[in-house]
Amino acid sequence: MICVQASSAKVKIGVFKCGNVGTAPLFELLLDELAQRKDITVRTVTTGSKMSLEEVKDAFPKILEFAPDLLVIISPNPAVSGPAAAREIAVQNRINTVVMSDAVAKRMISDLEKQGVGYIVVLGDPLIGARREFLDPVEMALFNSNIMKVLAATGVFRLIHQEIDRVIAVLKENLAIRLPRLLIDTVTIRDKSDFLNPYAKAKAMAAYHIASKIPEINTKACFMEKDSEKFIPLVACAHEMAQLAANLAEQAREIEKYSDSVLRTPHSKKGEPLTKRKLMQSPEFDNSLYKEWLKSLQKK
Amino acid sequence: MICVQASSAKVKIGVFKCGNVGTAPLFELLLDELAQRKDITVRTVTTGSKMSLEEVKDAFPKILEFAPDLLVIISPNPAVSGPAAAREIAVQNRINTVVMSDAVAKRMISDLEKQGVGYIVVLGDPLIGARREFLDPVEMALFNSNIMKVLAATGVFRLIHQEIDRVIAVLKENLAIRLPRLLIDTVTIRDKSDFLNPYAKAKAMAAYHIASKIPEINTKACFMEKDSEKFIPLVACAHEMAQLAANLAEQAREIEKYSDSVLRTPHSKKGEPLTKRKLMQSPEFDNSLYKEWLKSLQKK
Amino acid sequence: MICVQASSAKVKIGVFKCGNVGTAPLFELLLDELAQRKDITVRTVTTGSKMSLEEVKDAFPKILEFAPDLLVIISPNPAVSGPAAAREIAVQNRINTVVMSDAVAKRMISDLEKQGVGYIVVLGDPLIGARREFLDPVEMALFNSNIMKVLAATGVFRLIHQEIDRVIAVLKENLAIRLPRLLIDTVTIRDKSDFLNPYAKAKAMAAYHIASKIPEINTKACFMEKDSEKFIPLVACAHEMAQLAANLAEQAREIEKYSDSVLRTPHSKKGEPLTKRKLMQSPEFDNSLYKEWLKSLQKK
Amino acid sequence: MICVQASSAKVKIGVFKCGNVGTAPLFELLLDELAQRKDITVRTVTTGSKMSLEEVKDAFPKILEFAPDLLVIISPNPAVSGPAAAREIAVQNRINTVVMSDAVAKRMISDLEKQGVGYIVVLGDPLIGARREFLDPVEMALFNSNIMKVLAATGVFRLIHQEIDRVIAVLKENLAIRLPRLLIDTVTIRDKSDFLNPYAKAKAMAAYHIASKIPEINTKACFMEKDSEKFIPLVACAHEMAQLAANLAEQAREIEKYSDSVLRTPHSKKGEPLTKRKLMQSPEFDNSLYKEWLKSLQKK
Amino acid sequence: MICVQASSAKVKIGVFKCGNVGTAPLFELLLDELAQRKDITVRTVTTGSKMSLEEVKDAFPKILEFAPDLLVIISPNPAVSGPAAAREIAVQNRINTVVMSDAVAKRMISDLEKQGVGYIVVLGDPLIGARREFLDPVEMALFNSNIMKVLAATGVFRLIHQEIDRVIAVLKENLAIRLPRLLIDTVTIRDKSDFLNPYAKAKAMAAYHIASKIPEINTKACFMEKDSEKFIPLVACAHEMAQLAANLAEQAREIEKYSDSVLRTPHSKKGEPLTKRKLMQSPEFDNSLYKEWLKSLQKK
Amino acid sequence: MICVQASSAKVKIGVFKCGNVGTAPLFELLLDELAQRKDITVRTVTTGSKMSLEEVKDAFPKILEFAPDLLVIISPNPAVSGPAAAREIAVQNRINTVVMSDAVAKRMISDLEKQGVGYIVVLGDPLIGARREFLDPVEMALFNSNIMKVLAATGVFRLIHQEIDRVIAVLKENLAIRLPRLLIDTVTIRDKSDFLNPYAKAKAMAAYHIASKIPEINTKACFMEKDSEKFIPLVACAHEMAQLAANLAEQAREIEKYSDSVLRTPHSKKGEPLTKRKLMQSPEFDNSLYKEWLKSLQKK
Repeated sequence: MICVQASSAKVKIGVFKCGNVGTAPLFELLLDELAQRKDITVRTVTTGSKMSLEEVKDAFPKILEFAPDLLVIISPNPAVSGPAAAREIAVQNRINTVVMSDAVAKRMISDLEKQGVGYIVVLGDPLIGARREFLDPVEMALFNSNIMKVLAATGVFRLIHQEIDRVIAVLKENLAIRLPRLLIDTVTIRDKSDFLNPYAKAKAMAAYHIASKIPEINTKACFMEKDSEKFIPLVACAHEMAQLAANLAEQAREIEKYSDSVLRTPHSKKGEPLTKRKLMQSPEFDNSLYKEWLKSLQKK
Repeated sequence: MICVQASSAKVKIGVFKCGNVGTAPLFELLLDELAQRKDITVRTVTTGSKMSLEEVKDAFPKILEFAPDLLVIISPNPAVSGPAAAREIAVQNRINTVVMSDAVAKRMISDLEKQGVGYIVVLGDPLIGARREFLDPVEMALFNSNIMKVLAATGVFRLIHQEIDRVIAVLKENLAIRLPRLLIDTVTIRDKSDFLNPYAKAKAMAAYHIASKIPEINTKACFMEKDSEKFIPLVACAHEMAQLAANLAEQAREIEKYSDSVLRTPHSKKGEPLTKRKLMQSPEFDNSLYKEWLKSLQKK
Repeated sequence: MICVQASSAKVKIGVFKCGNVGTAPLFELLLDELAQRKDITVRTVTTGSKMSLEEVKDAFPKILEFAPDLLVIISPNPAVSGPAAAREIAVQNRINTVVMSDAVAKRMISDLEKQGVGYIVVLGDPLIGARREFLDPVEMALFNSNIMKVLAATGVFRLIHQEIDRVIAVLKENLAIRLPRLLIDTVTIRDKSDFLNPYAKAKAMAAYHIASKIPEINTKACFMEKDSEKFIPLVACAHEMAQLAANLAEQAREIEKYSDSVLRTPHSKKGEPLTKRKLMQSPEFDNSLYKEWLKSLQKK
Repeated sequence: MICVQASSAKVKIGVFKCGNVGTAPLFELLLDELAQRKDITVRTVTTGSKMSLEEVKDAFPKILEFAPDLLVIISPNPAVSGPAAAREIAVQNRINTVVMSDAVAKRMISDLEKQGVGYIVVLGDPLIGARREFLDPVEMALFNSNIMKVLAATGVFRLIHQEIDRVIAVLKENLAIRLPRLLIDTVTIRDKSDFLNPYAKAKAMAAYHIASKIPEINTKACFMEKDSEKFIPLVACAHEMAQLAANLAEQAREIEKYSDSVLRTPHSKKGEPLTKRKLMQSPEFDNSLYKEWLKSLQKK
Repeated sequence: MICVQASSAKVKIGVFKCGNVGTAPLFELLLDELAQRKDITVRTVTTGSKMSLEEVKDAFPKILEFAPDLLVIISPNPAVSGPAAAREIAVQNRINTVVMSDAVAKRMISDLEKQGVGYIVVLGDPLIGARREFLDPVEMALFNSNIMKVLAATGVFRLIHQEIDRVIAVLKENLAIRLPRLLIDTVTIRDKSDFLNPYAKAKAMAAYHIASKIPEINTKACFMEKDSEKFIPLVACAHEMAQLAANLAEQAREIEKYSDSVLRTPHSKKGEPLTKRKLMQSPEFDNSLYKEWLKSLQKK
Repeated sequence: MICVQASSAKVKIGVFKCGNVGTAPLFELLLDELAQRKDITVRTVTTGSKMSLEEVKDAFPKILEFAPDLLVIISPNPAVSGPAAAREIAVQNRINTVVMSDAVAKRMISDLEKQGVGYIVVLGDPLIGARREFLDPVEMALFNSNIMKVLAATGVFRLIHQEIDRVIAVLKENLAIRLPRLLIDTVTIRDKSDFLNPYAKAKAMAAYHIASKIPEINTKACFMEKDSEKFIPLVACAHEMAQLAANLAEQAREIEKYSDSVLRTPHSKKGEPLTKRKLMQSPEFDNSLYKEWLKSLQKK
């Protein structure tokens, strides 16, 4: 049994969001779902849905002033000038930086690796149907609700928070960090999700795969078709796919409920990974996961 | 209460979030769903799920530095020391301030009015089932996804963004502001939502009413029951209610789809209110709504 | 309070219904679902949906002539003159009397206890949306169908029939009776229902809780709002809640089907409590329940 | 406009139930769903689930003492000695008598006509799966809930109450009665139900047809198979059919909700037939129906 | 372990289809779902939806030229001149012949037995709603899709392919053939299907029973009613029943997924019967089934 | 390319199937759904699921002997030796030939055009999950059922039969044929399907798009992954996508039912295109479609 010794100081997690992706709205809440964690301080600064260079330049310094031990930059397109500038500044300041983004960022991965920046690229976090004829605040919120359900129920949010939790643990142990290099596609759900029922897993994979195909439709609708007769049906189709994927992901979780085998991984007050399966059970320290975090470190 | 700058400049919307409620994760996105709005700048600072006085004191100044024309403070319990301090400072700085919160804030309304602070109190934005035996990051995210769906599909998010849009319009017109005084309960859905089909409205009301009854269960589970045998079934029950409410709210919207009468109210690039019903239609400037905003002002 | 005749004779159960609640239409059938029970005779007299003093005075003597060993008076509002008169007469005649009603009767409990009258108060048996603009015979029947499904699938009907069966068993054993004192709320479902799957139980609790919140809406709609524009959406909302609660309760039972663990508690020909879980199993005498019934008696 | 002149005295409706069918539990409530009808008095006497000659002989006089203008005898098998005796006595007493029953009564129709007794035979009101290994009070209640939903949503309950309302109207007009001769099969739903959407009607017909095929399975299960391995799957199958039929009937009604065309036919305080389609509309006197009732009479 | 020794030559399966039933479109694919079977050659000739004598006389010789070891004739009405002629010729040519048909063929069974022709009569394979006002190619395809789902998910397709596989095995062993004599009704599902969960079986039985009642409606609609006002609702009703039966059959299979107990019986490359339950398991040779096939043979 | 015989004679449609795709099992039935068409004779020869050169060489001559005016060759992979040989022979014999296939054939289109062969390539007709650990006859049938539902309900089957009907019409008019050149992707559903409700169309597009993404998963599972731990979840995922797509396509059609606007295009006895929308309406000759068929011809 390895005991988790919290360094007396809290680990400071800075989050900078410019523009929105499905992982953004709840990201910092994933790290401290019960608001009882003593080992971290979280601070987020965002520019809302905008991601221009001007906005970023104005807002980014606020998160630097927080002096984060780990900085997470979330943006739908990390390659454009705004988020790129933020990343640049962070690297210059030698801050441990992780970029979180969607499929668009896949082609940047080798650049990020060269920059020494970690990344979490979520292929099932799709481009929204951003056409004024279709997207209003309510439709935007519904889409985000659906994508959040997909990312939560398929286990993607767990992969994300555990990867960040791993880094936090390492920071607390005061060891050299290996930043996240995580590309989450349908095969990741197959290999890393926690479903006990294999059909629940198959449904979760299907939900995630459907979500990951939405950008095909929305890219065409948002950037290629000029005629509203052409693009409105496309964005509507894409959002129906999102709704369907959410329903299917929910069904996958329901199946695990039917055999009382829903995995739960809350954080302890100290920020340790806990785990449980049966609803009426108490969560327990997940020793094997914690060891794995350290072991992977020792490899380095 | 101070009046505001020339309409040529952008209206600056500051958002401060400490702790989470269902309206928080997407709030600033509701104001600029297409990221094309030229008339506003939005800046958000949050402390994650924490709302202690210490956290707030450290973080709140960052949003003040932004010098917002309108400040929205979002918190699950505006009465406790952290958010109360933020509000206090804002009032002292004569900033136009709106508190956004859930049912807990209902009893503070007259105090807020005395302070000259606006409020948006959403009774259907319920307390989460914050018990470590049940709530992990995934369950937290699912709950938020469900509540967002309820708030979006029942029209609550529209009420909220239009109320803020009204204030922005007034700021742009450089007139005296009447800050929001909005308490959203089941009857509000009846009187203010935009369903054409009366059964869709009835289902939306039912969804919202169910959501608004979740705190009864979760308050008992989180603060009164000590034995996990007692509180686990309660929090599980509460989250099933949330899931059900989300499904019902989605069904309400589906009914409007079936008669092609879903209301959409996107923002124009200038931030004007647009409106449309038929999917293949183009949105048009909502003149009557805009006039109503001004008229209500002239009354004052 | 009088004790009862030899176990050779049948126990006579009299039922008097004036007005309707969700437990009323099937009550006597719950006691003898297979029509094969040799130990009881059941007689019911009702005034239909009316509960005026005049109607009750005319009809009630018919059930007295039956000389019941146990009298169950079912009414939506036991406090008004009609049912109150019936109860009064029953008490004067020293008949073992149980009042069965809905949430309205909650405030009468101490009075009933003083009168020496037993009670079964079902909080999840809600007021119907009694507005002529909405309620016709079909809508009334659908509402009752939905509430019956909630009361059946959540286990409330089992609680009720077992409580009456307990009294019958005691009457057959010729011992002193402890009349039912049963208030069934959401917590009762948690503590007394028979689900093996904890998520099935959580869904059943949610269904029952939703049903128990219908009166909030219908009371407003039936007694407070005067304008049909106001009250029609409310009663429609309330009945959507009932339909939803029924669907959710059905789903709770389906989950138990999925693991072949639906509890069944038929009556033997002798009226004994039987029990079984697996569908293909034969029911067996529920010795522990029967003992508990007697033991609780010996305590007294 | 024909005015409805209530005779000063109320029409007395007696109901005698021995044994249960799907139309029984709610029958008298269908006649006065709002409990506000001034033109009728209803009195019901039942023997619970039993229908033996002994029980009937004891209980039936109580309803005779009520001196009903119209007597409705409800029983699952009007041919057996108990209900047959009741009918015999009613005929001897020259009481206007209607037998209400299920498919079993189909073969008795010509006998009933010879006796001068009216009938309402509901083919979609099926035999329950009365096997102790399967049927307990909860399963019985669920089955009844499902059948009620089928009978309500497909319009059968409307056919029944309007037929009785017709007789009441005639009694009030003090004219010669033509007693009901109503056999309700799938074709009746096609020709007499009130769906505006033809697919809703097709689904309602399907629901009713499925319900009407349940007795094939349950007759085999209850009376022909001796081995529990054989009959348990049959009764379980039959009750799944009932649940499915209920869900489909509900869907049929939902379709009418989606176009806001649900027919509602409440009773006025005077007992007149009212009618409406749009939810927010007020019900109006159904003149054409009332005329039809009288005209059919004048033919006679 | 009995080894399956494939005779060096392949068994030749000829299929002749004239007109369509639900088992027809996929029949030959059921025998070789992976297209890897080395022990059989399959050849099919069809006349499309026509079944006239003329068409059959022209087309049938083509399948005779194939010189099948086993001939399967599929037709919705084997008694009419076309398929009857085909059967006659096959018998004259002493070909092992099996007739596959729907309920219409039930009355021909003794004739088929006299002719020495095997049969597979599927009562749940219903007459389509063949009215031009309703049935177009799309509706026809949907109906077939639904019936296929019923026949697949309830296990009927398994009963069929295993019966043919049995004959193939016998042909390969070069022994005397006992041709299929299979009448598949609801009781067959009860006794021969492979569900582990008894409620899944009950739902499958219900689905199949509903499918088997469709011809009652469609026979009336297609052959008895002349007026489109009468027959359109009937065919629409019948197809709703088919859709519902398909949904229910799917649900039955879903339940088996929930406990990871879906039976799978693929063919090996040699055409042997394999079997498995758990999804992640490998299929194994089904020795007991194979023995049973031989044993039944030795009886003969 | 040869022109065709007098319109007095029937047009002969030959169909050759080797291997299976989703359009294959019902193809010839789409042309004559009521089996009453006087203007065509259809003959199909298939090799079952096999598509080897040997099988094709043996079977293909049978369809040539039929001397078809139009030959449709259906195969999952027209490029491999078997179907390629069939096509070659057809071309050599100067037969009007159309290849029908799935996405695999997309890359062959220019070759087919050079050969003078028509094509119908259906991108939403996906590769099955052909792994013995997963695919048995029942799973194969369910997959086909689901794909058929997608192709029927989204309107793809209509596009196909109308394209063939167009060629038949031209053959009957004795004019030069323009063979089909039809590639059906998601955009085709947008532009060519017949939904009146735009959300129904969006759902149909989503269903079809999901179906068209199944091959990504199944190609990986069937041809790239070697380990059953890897490929079983993939094929299971792919089939869940198929089931989901079927459910969604069904929902799209349901929406059209709700507004009674389901398009139906039956064939008249003469084979003419008929059309109708309202269920209770009679179908009428679709003059505009027929003219369009001719006009397109005159262009040529």
